[in-house]
Amino acid sequence: MTATLLFASKTERWTTYEAPLRHALGALGVKYRLGTDFPPEEVDYIIYAPNSGIVDFTPFTRLKAVLNLWAGVEAVVGNPTLQVPLARMVDFGLTQGMTEWVVGHTLRHHLGMDTHILNQDGAWRKTAPPLARDRRIGLLGLGALGIAAGTTLARLGFPVTGWSRSEKSAEGITCRHGEAGLRETLAQADILILLLPDTPATRDVLDADAIARMPRGAVVINPGRGPLIVDDALIAALDSGQLGHATLDVFRTEPLPPEHPFWAHPKVTVTPHIASETRPDTAAEVIAENVRRGEVGEPLLHLVDRDLGY
Amino acid sequence: MTATLLFASKTERWTTYEAPLRHALGALGVKYRLGTDFPPEEVDYIIYAPNSGIVDFTPFTRLKAVLNLWAGVEAVVGNPTLQVPLARMVDFGLTQGMTEWVVGHTLRHHLGMDTHILNQDGAWRKTAPPLARDRRIGLLGLGALGIAAGTTLARLGFPVTGWSRSEKSAEGITCRHGEAGLRETLAQADILILLLPDTPATRDVLDADAIARMPRGAVVINPGRGPLIVDDALIAALDSGQLGHATLDVFRTEPLPPEHPFWAHPKVTVTPHIASETRPDTAAEVIAENVRRGEVGEPLLHLVDRDLGY
Repeated sequence: MTATLLFASKTERWTTYEAPLRHALGALGVKYRLGTDFPPEEVDYIIYAPNSGIVDFTPFTRLKAVLNLWAGVEAVVGNPTLQVPLARMVDFGLTQGMTEWVVGHTLRHHLGMDTHILNQDGAWRKTAPPLARDRRIGLLGLGALGIAAGTTLARLGFPVTGWSRSEKSAEGITCRHGEAGLRETLAQADILILLLPDTPATRDVLDADAIARMPRGAVVINPGRGPLIVDDALIAALDSGQLGHATLDVFRTEPLPPEHPFWAHPKVTVTPHIASETRPDTAAEVIAENVRRGEVGEPLLHLVDRDLGY
Repeated sequence: MTATLLFASKTERWTTYEAPLRHALGALGVKYRLGTDFPPEEVDYIIYAPNSGIVDFTPFTRLKAVLNLWAGVEAVVGNPTLQVPLARMVDFGLTQGMTEWVVGHTLRHHLGMDTHILNQDGAWRKTAPPLARDRRIGLLGLGALGIAAGTTLARLGFPVTGWSRSEKSAEGITCRHGEAGLRETLAQADILILLLPDTPATRDVLDADAIARMPRGAVVINPGRGPLIVDDALIAALDSGQLGHATLDVFRTEPLPPEHPFWAHPKVTVTPHIASETRPDTAAEVIAENVRRGEVGEPLLHLVDRDLGY
């Protein structure tokens, strides 16, 4: 049987997703028709972005499931015309990509790579870095992204202390929580990684007081959210030597304006919000797997509980 | 009982090793006297560098073992006056440090970090890199260092193909050998890592012919030995675009002379032979552990087979 898949999103998404979807569906041996325009009564699955314009699912009389392209489902979960299963996007590529970025930049600072990348001047600066076991990592945020990055760093040999507001545990990570736990985590963070969400409770978590608790010369890496950091306090600490460097991927305003002092600061590396991306290849694999499951009657991945709303 | 430990090496080594040795011996609870000058008949263990000047072990009448500071024992193993066990240095810090350096620079190239490190000009260059699973690693050399680095890269998600002259196997690494295996490994190496020893058979292994077999734009990382690479062929391939970058830690002449074209080449990163170092901290731990074993009658680590010579 051939499944009819309606791709319902903005046009530019179709350009990005068509080839990865065909590739992923083909790899699973799914028989399908895929397009952006089918009569509603022929559609088996909608690959769905909440901003696609579809708000009434009633005409989709043979619909088997709605497969959301976004992690967030708040704009569709309460739709009374949606009577079939709804799956949200959980892209393992996003977690994996974040881990690669975090581990890469942690090793970059640990190994002192910039000294060599920026100074190819003929001077033989032979100073070997310490081993990972002698470089203490502090990790603020123990959600899925924080735990993935932290456990990978721990397996590489770094001592990792992780902090979250509520108590958590993760293999290889010394877990702390609460206000006292935050102070302890900061006090031993030679490299501090920020992977907290942006909430009223986490906003400005890295302010002048927090930075002052860190070891002198420590490095800050922020692939989390821009508002976690008080920008002026960070710059003051870099200027005073309290912090050695900051590598920042996220900002209060994005793209970071060219006149923002981070760009010109010799101790700041700006990267353009590339640490974490939903990736068409891996997102397409999640969708293709759910179509395959739907066609053979297996339970869908990442099914939304309509009562809980996620 | 107190063990008397004679440190027999060049003076600058004593400066480097005294504190780590005392720390490591103390951590194991060993009772000891440590110094560079004891009457031979009082010495229980010699912590020994073959260039120390000691060539006659006969006066050391109560000697229990010689603990070599070097991995190589060829200068001492045949000494007929040496009648006690000889242990060579196997420094786990050397392997660990090499893995950290290789993984760090692999991720640096994989993530395209240099674009951002070298261009903090206010331009928002938002191109996310592919995932590790889509970046093929070629690894020449499957000794202890190659296997440690390769398995760590494989655990991070990189597909790793490893090559050695004779057949080997290692978890997570697709192992190839022989001439045909070398060609296959080169043909799929988006990033090629050289961890071969310097022997007549490996010298010049990365010549113009080998480079031509690699994917266009590939990256070469050499923490192995300088003579593995034909320098002129490497530069020609960087200039033609056949290779995208080379990060080199070892050279035919070290320190690399300031006038060598590698220094000024925009697609070459020179690092000053820092990927692999015997580290006093971890080397001292090996020696302390062997003293502890000797004192309680346990077999020594890394004991040399005098007949085999290693």
